[in-house]
Amino acid sequence: MNKTAVVILADGFEEIEGIAPIDVLRRAGVRVTVAGLGTKHIKSSRGLTIQADVLFSDYKDFPDVVILPGGLPGATNLAQAKEVGEFVKKMNSAQKLVAAICAAPAVVLAPLGILDQKKVTCYPGCEAELPKEALYSQERVVMDGNLITSRGPGTALEFSLEIIKYLLGKDVAESLRGKMLIRV
Amino acid sequence: MNKTAVVILADGFEEIEGIAPIDVLRRAGVRVTVAGLGTKHIKSSRGLTIQADVLFSDYKDFPDVVILPGGLPGATNLAQAKEVGEFVKKMNSAQKLVAAICAAPAVVLAPLGILDQKKVTCYPGCEAELPKEALYSQERVVMDGNLITSRGPGTALEFSLEIIKYLLGKDVAESLRGKMLIRV
Repeated sequence: MNKTAVVILADGFEEIEGIAPIDVLRRAGVRVTVAGLGTKHIKSSRGLTIQADVLFSDYKDFPDVVILPGGLPGATNLAQAKEVGEFVKKMNSAQKLVAAICAAPAVVLAPLGILDQKKVTCYPGCEAELPKEALYSQERVVMDGNLITSRGPGTALEFSLEIIKYLLGKDVAESLRGKMLIRV
Repeated sequence: MNKTAVVILADGFEEIEGIAPIDVLRRAGVRVTVAGLGTKHIKSSRGLTIQADVLFSDYKDFPDVVILPGGLPGATNLAQAKEVGEFVKKMNSAQKLVAAICAAPAVVLAPLGILDQKKVTCYPGCEAELPKEALYSQERVVMDGNLITSRGPGTALEFSLEIIKYLLGKDVAESLRGKMLIRV
């Protein structure tokens, strides 16, 4: 059975961070649902309107991974939505993969209290908002258990490949890296 | 006055190749128009619907750069649209910047007869469709006069920075590279 993913997009999401995982995961055969927070017509940080597959409030699946892009005010909008926090905590409790990039690890995940003793990265500067108990790393992509975090638009493809590697193994990730001309 | 750009999106465009330049150029203050070919609701290669700013048929400006993403059948759709070919030839004749990535250099630009004696790259394999008179390169991004070409989704951010460098100079490009965490 195909792996499943949900990418939660809120107004103000960072374009590349939102769209790269959708592109890469769909190439790998993952069933990706794009869930819009509060609207099915999400406006990105720089004014692009993207159509979501469903409203997040109508999304009732429990997928293999939840993906949270950064961008402002996108990440803040995700953080302010209680239903997003509840969903991420439920995913995390079930040891399902939680993947967040840029501002999202600090802005969305930190307040949920799920980063203690976890190795984690985020957009440079945002680490001030991580809990003291988190193990901050400056690597471009960090995997620790069921948590994958990354830093910004320029790391979004590497972040997406790390998700593929977690879900489908190294060979699938490396094959896509070659086909998409993503740097090692 | 701000620099201006048009990104022409056709159904089947490659997500990252279409969206990275929009994101990066808008960050740099370039006035980017997203022009949809035949529709204002463009469906990407992997099923994302993006809303264009205008129909390409209604676009009457003569910007500083035209950007052509790849993806299939996106690039083929661009190539089959006579009005796109006429526009690109007019831009090229005026020595305005023409930027194409992935399949687009081979599928869209080659038939227009504007690549002779030009150093050019494209998605690996597509070089078979380049004219013999083109100077094929395997570099990730190639600039030759008013032509910038590149190879695929994984090179889309570097491609975007090269456009910035051409329009606004190296310092603006390098500043964005840092902020967006794009690899050197």
